[in-house]
Amino acid sequence: MNLPSKLIENAVNEIAKLPSIGKKTALRLVIHLLKQDESYTEKLSEAILKLRQDIKYCQRCYNIADEDFCQICLAKNRDQEIICVVESFKDLISIENTAQYRGLYHVLGGLISPIENISPEQLKIENLVQRVEQEQPREIILALSASMEGDTTAFYITKKLKDFPIKITSLARGLPIGGELEYADEITLGRSLMARVSIK
Amino acid sequence: MNLPSKLIENAVNEIAKLPSIGKKTALRLVIHLLKQDESYTEKLSEAILKLRQDIKYCQRCYNIADEDFCQICLAKNRDQEIICVVESFKDLISIENTAQYRGLYHVLGGLISPIENISPEQLKIENLVQRVEQEQPREIILALSASMEGDTTAFYITKKLKDFPIKITSLARGLPIGGELEYADEITLGRSLMARVSIK
Repeated sequence: MNLPSKLIENAVNEIAKLPSIGKKTALRLVIHLLKQDESYTEKLSEAILKLRQDIKYCQRCYNIADEDFCQICLAKNRDQEIICVVESFKDLISIENTAQYRGLYHVLGGLISPIENISPEQLKIENLVQRVEQEQPREIILALSASMEGDTTAFYITKKLKDFPIKITSLARGLPIGGELEYADEITLGRSLMARVSIK
Repeated sequence: MNLPSKLIENAVNEIAKLPSIGKKTALRLVIHLLKQDESYTEKLSEAILKLRQDIKYCQRCYNIADEDFCQICLAKNRDQEIICVVESFKDLISIENTAQYRGLYHVLGGLISPIENISPEQLKIENLVQRVEQEQPREIILALSASMEGDTTAFYITKKLKDFPIKITSLARGLPIGGELEYADEITLGRSLMARVSIK
């Protein structure tokens, strides 16, 4: 692309580094920004800068936080005896958005993956074990992806926690709500058959 | 969306104000930014801030510029006697990207539109007339959209320039390259029939 301004070229290049934004979309955004009030670009620019500069991680659950502890750990009305183990902040938000869970979290920061060279030591698994020792929760929910990496990580954590007198659960697997049987893949269907639930 | 951090909430809200970016995409971008080096968010933030703060408009053609005059007006190898009139900076870039045009531009900053309440005085039409008077180009190309607004603006400009001894042309209209006749709309097809070109 032939851009007649260095300022625009620079902005387009930086914006196009974001995932799923190409040069054309970046240029569209830049043209949009040029039409806006200067106060908006100032706010946007500051929000992006502060986001990365001031962000902290909760010292208890490794969730993203504005202070030393995250808003979930600080909330008094949440069940302090259930810890939901998630891969990332993104998954934590997905679970929060269901509005079905009122316990605490523990963010691992990834999943064990020999292919991507992620070993258990790089994740917050040891911290989870320490936390279970100190806080003595009654239940750990392993809310990990239904993938090879998720299963491996769940297996590893279960082994690490086997000596504690706690309940360890994992998310239910089966047909997605609204999913038609005809279009379910064999593995999902096979598993939901094995894990069938009594209704009467 | 329930976000556990004010910093993230703020960044998501600002990013989601951009066109075609919703809250979900904004959150995905924010999570991506959190994983990047701090230097990247600094550069991105600065590029956005400077874009709006330092941008200027060329005093000759109203194209976006880093200095008083744009890079196209300053280029010595461009034909100084043809002026291509475009609606916006975006259209200018589209034409530049064809690599078929080596003349100058004049950016109107919009099209006459009674519906959107844009009158000729709000556009750089008077400046175009002055420019034609001073620079005495040999040709004006009206590269405007094939819409009601584009045609109205072209008609208005043609009338304003009728006393100058210059050639005024407009972009060719007809079937788009690669476009199948079967799928062309009636108006396009009708016009390309009327404006048929002799090939032998």
